[in-house]
Amino acid sequence: MDKLQDILNEITATLATREERGKPADYIPPLAHVSPQHFGIAVALNEGGLFTAGEADLPFSIQSISKVFTLTLALGMYGDALWRRVGREPSGSAFNSIVLLEQEKGIPRNPFINPGALVVADALLAHARAPRETIGEILRFLRFVSDDETISADPLVARAEKATGFRNAALANYLHSWGNLMNPPDHVLGVYFHHCAVTMSCAQLARAGGFLANAGRNPVTGRSVISSVRARRINALMMTCGHYDGSGDFAYRVGIPGKSGVGGGILAIVPGVASVAVWSPGLNANGNSLLGSEALEMLSHRMGWSVF
Amino acid sequence: MDKLQDILNEITATLATREERGKPADYIPPLAHVSPQHFGIAVALNEGGLFTAGEADLPFSIQSISKVFTLTLALGMYGDALWRRVGREPSGSAFNSIVLLEQEKGIPRNPFINPGALVVADALLAHARAPRETIGEILRFLRFVSDDETISADPLVARAEKATGFRNAALANYLHSWGNLMNPPDHVLGVYFHHCAVTMSCAQLARAGGFLANAGRNPVTGRSVISSVRARRINALMMTCGHYDGSGDFAYRVGIPGKSGVGGGILAIVPGVASVAVWSPGLNANGNSLLGSEALEMLSHRMGWSVF
Amino acid sequence: MDKLQDILNEITATLATREERGKPADYIPPLAHVSPQHFGIAVALNEGGLFTAGEADLPFSIQSISKVFTLTLALGMYGDALWRRVGREPSGSAFNSIVLLEQEKGIPRNPFINPGALVVADALLAHARAPRETIGEILRFLRFVSDDETISADPLVARAEKATGFRNAALANYLHSWGNLMNPPDHVLGVYFHHCAVTMSCAQLARAGGFLANAGRNPVTGRSVISSVRARRINALMMTCGHYDGSGDFAYRVGIPGKSGVGGGILAIVPGVASVAVWSPGLNANGNSLLGSEALEMLSHRMGWSVF
Amino acid sequence: MDKLQDILNEITATLATREERGKPADYIPPLAHVSPQHFGIAVALNEGGLFTAGEADLPFSIQSISKVFTLTLALGMYGDALWRRVGREPSGSAFNSIVLLEQEKGIPRNPFINPGALVVADALLAHARAPRETIGEILRFLRFVSDDETISADPLVARAEKATGFRNAALANYLHSWGNLMNPPDHVLGVYFHHCAVTMSCAQLARAGGFLANAGRNPVTGRSVISSVRARRINALMMTCGHYDGSGDFAYRVGIPGKSGVGGGILAIVPGVASVAVWSPGLNANGNSLLGSEALEMLSHRMGWSVF
Repeated sequence: MDKLQDILNEITATLATREERGKPADYIPPLAHVSPQHFGIAVALNEGGLFTAGEADLPFSIQSISKVFTLTLALGMYGDALWRRVGREPSGSAFNSIVLLEQEKGIPRNPFINPGALVVADALLAHARAPRETIGEILRFLRFVSDDETISADPLVARAEKATGFRNAALANYLHSWGNLMNPPDHVLGVYFHHCAVTMSCAQLARAGGFLANAGRNPVTGRSVISSVRARRINALMMTCGHYDGSGDFAYRVGIPGKSGVGGGILAIVPGVASVAVWSPGLNANGNSLLGSEALEMLSHRMGWSVF
Repeated sequence: MDKLQDILNEITATLATREERGKPADYIPPLAHVSPQHFGIAVALNEGGLFTAGEADLPFSIQSISKVFTLTLALGMYGDALWRRVGREPSGSAFNSIVLLEQEKGIPRNPFINPGALVVADALLAHARAPRETIGEILRFLRFVSDDETISADPLVARAEKATGFRNAALANYLHSWGNLMNPPDHVLGVYFHHCAVTMSCAQLARAGGFLANAGRNPVTGRSVISSVRARRINALMMTCGHYDGSGDFAYRVGIPGKSGVGGGILAIVPGVASVAVWSPGLNANGNSLLGSEALEMLSHRMGWSVF
Repeated sequence: MDKLQDILNEITATLATREERGKPADYIPPLAHVSPQHFGIAVALNEGGLFTAGEADLPFSIQSISKVFTLTLALGMYGDALWRRVGREPSGSAFNSIVLLEQEKGIPRNPFINPGALVVADALLAHARAPRETIGEILRFLRFVSDDETISADPLVARAEKATGFRNAALANYLHSWGNLMNPPDHVLGVYFHHCAVTMSCAQLARAGGFLANAGRNPVTGRSVISSVRARRINALMMTCGHYDGSGDFAYRVGIPGKSGVGGGILAIVPGVASVAVWSPGLNANGNSLLGSEALEMLSHRMGWSVF
Repeated sequence: MDKLQDILNEITATLATREERGKPADYIPPLAHVSPQHFGIAVALNEGGLFTAGEADLPFSIQSISKVFTLTLALGMYGDALWRRVGREPSGSAFNSIVLLEQEKGIPRNPFINPGALVVADALLAHARAPRETIGEILRFLRFVSDDETISADPLVARAEKATGFRNAALANYLHSWGNLMNPPDHVLGVYFHHCAVTMSCAQLARAGGFLANAGRNPVTGRSVISSVRARRINALMMTCGHYDGSGDFAYRVGIPGKSGVGGGILAIVPGVASVAVWSPGLNANGNSLLGSEALEMLSHRMGWSVF
């Protein structure tokens, strides 16, 4: 796999010269000040070995990438019953749109748009009873799948999101008005803002996604996280819904499942082969990392990793 | 005007036998238990004289009828500058729809749908600084226009609305996310729920609306409330937007400006002639008093009061 | 009524100097070339007398103003049964929007937006059987109400609308797909484009609207056109729906019922008093005559003609 | 591959006993009378060999499956320039919705919903000039990729669709009104209805899809149809958009790219392995073959063919 390392180096070198780097999310103050010059990438192969390039060890705010893990956790608790409260279809609209929610009477289209993730957070809360406990459970799960006890949430980011998150508060209250939240909106938002505020590096994130690439089992520790069927299904959701209103484009250009976050990170899965994490804070028009998407397109092309 | 009294008596007698009386609003617990058997009507003539029939002295929750008075108050403070934050067009959708708000980037279509009234409440708050102060100001204004110091808000209703008002909380947070609230959503909702919880009888309400029928001046006390142009304009808004998604139908059948509330009250204005209040708690499909609308249709027809 | 003539002259003089005159509709080629410098106004009083100023005798394309007359005709044929196929509520969206039509399953919101007028044309067709016959019937009705045998449709305008009217063809086919057209879309469009292509002057139009101002009876000939109740109701519809998405604003500023056309004409009714026609080809953002609206605002203000 | 034949036989036997078989499309008369008892399946392996079960040689109306082939043809003519006129994102709404088209100003969300396929038909027309010529070109292409000169369109079905296709006529006229059709709506609809009326058996369809499973090259004849990159990209579009508003569910349950038609057929691609066609006329709520989807889910599961 020298070839893989060479490819990662080339990609990193190519993108280092890129002038058009997108714009960091500006609505969460601590994220607005992160430089778009950052770039890191990490690949964790199922067969073993972690390959990195750029700032792969610098922690960043994983934001919506966390939704992959909260969904995994909630499916473990509720199984398919979870799908009574949230759909599995691409949304055809922006990540924080409230319009579809009215049309669909409070059932969010999928667990990766904000209202869907709020429902998942509510489901986790119902299980654990208290926001603090639930946040603890999510963190323990992240530490378990990544085999790394240092992972935690950044309280400053969580607080900043709470202070500015009126759109998410609108969504939570709206879901409650449709009877699709069991807990007080404030509690659900607390859990949601905290899991979005989790900080990880590309290296940590690539390792954390390993079980999705490896039929539900952590390829390093060998510990089973979920069944292989469920792993496949989560990958399918990442393919159709993982990039908001740019999911079709990502599938078309990159050809592997992925989930992006407004912090500029993307977790992508090459089923049976590898888990990949990339980070560059500048976003494109759909709110996905501009250089991150490009890096994954190059990597998928060079390695022949498209599932299609 | 013996004729008017006879007509009111006949209308009341006719509707007393009506079996189909609509359904009281069920989402605000204290309102859900009000019997749909109630009916009252009061007419305050500009030339003097208050004519009533039925339970015209029984107080009820005026709910959205209060929006006519908060709008009047806010126009007095801000003048036409208020229209930068809220439109003057019928909405073509339900009173608590959030869809149009997304399309119109946080500018509610008119001050009588819930998001528009929240913006008006926010404007009043900005003027008075504290929710308690603002609520006081609104109550003082209602007492002034109705020349009745006993008018107050029902704290149980306000609290019940707060406890169940997730849809309104969604709207307030959503408006804030578009930058169209200046105050914390909680404060705005506090003011809003309190003015909706004001309790008045038909007799009080008919007197309170007198200034709108009388070119801006209270016909009893003679005190000027607003200019005649502004009174006409508020009447125009009541005509086009006063009955949510049933405004066109009300104009078509009744032919005078009116504003309804989910408590089952309607305030209707016969410009130059009279202010009318009617109350019956059962609502039609659009959320307007079923028998109240009918009573006004009969009254308008019998008295030749249609403006058309 | 010397005063009325003076006021009309003053309004015409004031607006003659106006530089911002709006933009003529550009999507119907023959209308695009009409100069925005034109201005005419005519007032037909119920008590007798036609007062005019500016180019009140120059014929122009009445376009959507014709919908008032086709609606009157269809109500005469079908009575309230017509309302099963078309609503009576303001639309909250542009005159040719197709969105609401999907939400409301093929029932247009009101007879003055394009899809509603297509349903009315279809109803007229069903009565008369052939497009040519139906167009003849509409023209005869217009000649009857205006007491003027010279009124006709401009075949060049009708043909131009047909050649460019893909949006209306979309609406007609869409209505048919919902089962709310009985006749082939092409026939319905033929009738629609022809009645929109009728040419009238302000003087003719003011006389044609007389029956709406005079309780259903032509004030000059004394002939009854419709019942007084129906006249009132058509006026109510003009108030709530007559200016597309600017209806609320027109009611607020002018305070009388009116119906505009993209040719720059507006027919306005002062119930019990007068029928007014105004024409200036430049349109505002909502597709209504810019100077025409202003002229009516001035006239209503100066004469105290607001119904509110 | 005895195992494959056994699995196909088992699936066919299992589904033969199924009582709930969905409902054939009823809006195209000739399709409404096809019995939901039919079931056929065919698998064409890249490595050679065609495996079938049930009525795999009975021809049926491929309907929207044809959109895969017209898209392939249009991409061959225009390359990525085609994407200026049509998007690549899932639509989040029904296959014939007109709402999104208004929001997105006449650019359909993807080439597999009806308006997108109309734009593709228009692009093909612009290349060939006449509807008859264009239809001929599409048929020649289908015969080429399936290596079968007998493939043709059913004129009765094409005519029936034309006679009842008001919704599609609405879409075509609407696209034209936005300037996104170059040819007269009638011509575009003619081409569209004809390619939807193509009749093929499962065996023929599985062979026709072979190039998509085999990196762009027909696995039997060895002839190159498109580049391997383009084949992958078309597969990606089938994954995210191939089943209308049930695309996410199909990806989740079946895990391979597929395109359904309202005739009850589905073409599914196992990249690098096989092209699969299945047919059963009863549809589920999203308009996709009920038993066909289930058969593919079983097949994918038993063979381990999910790409995830």
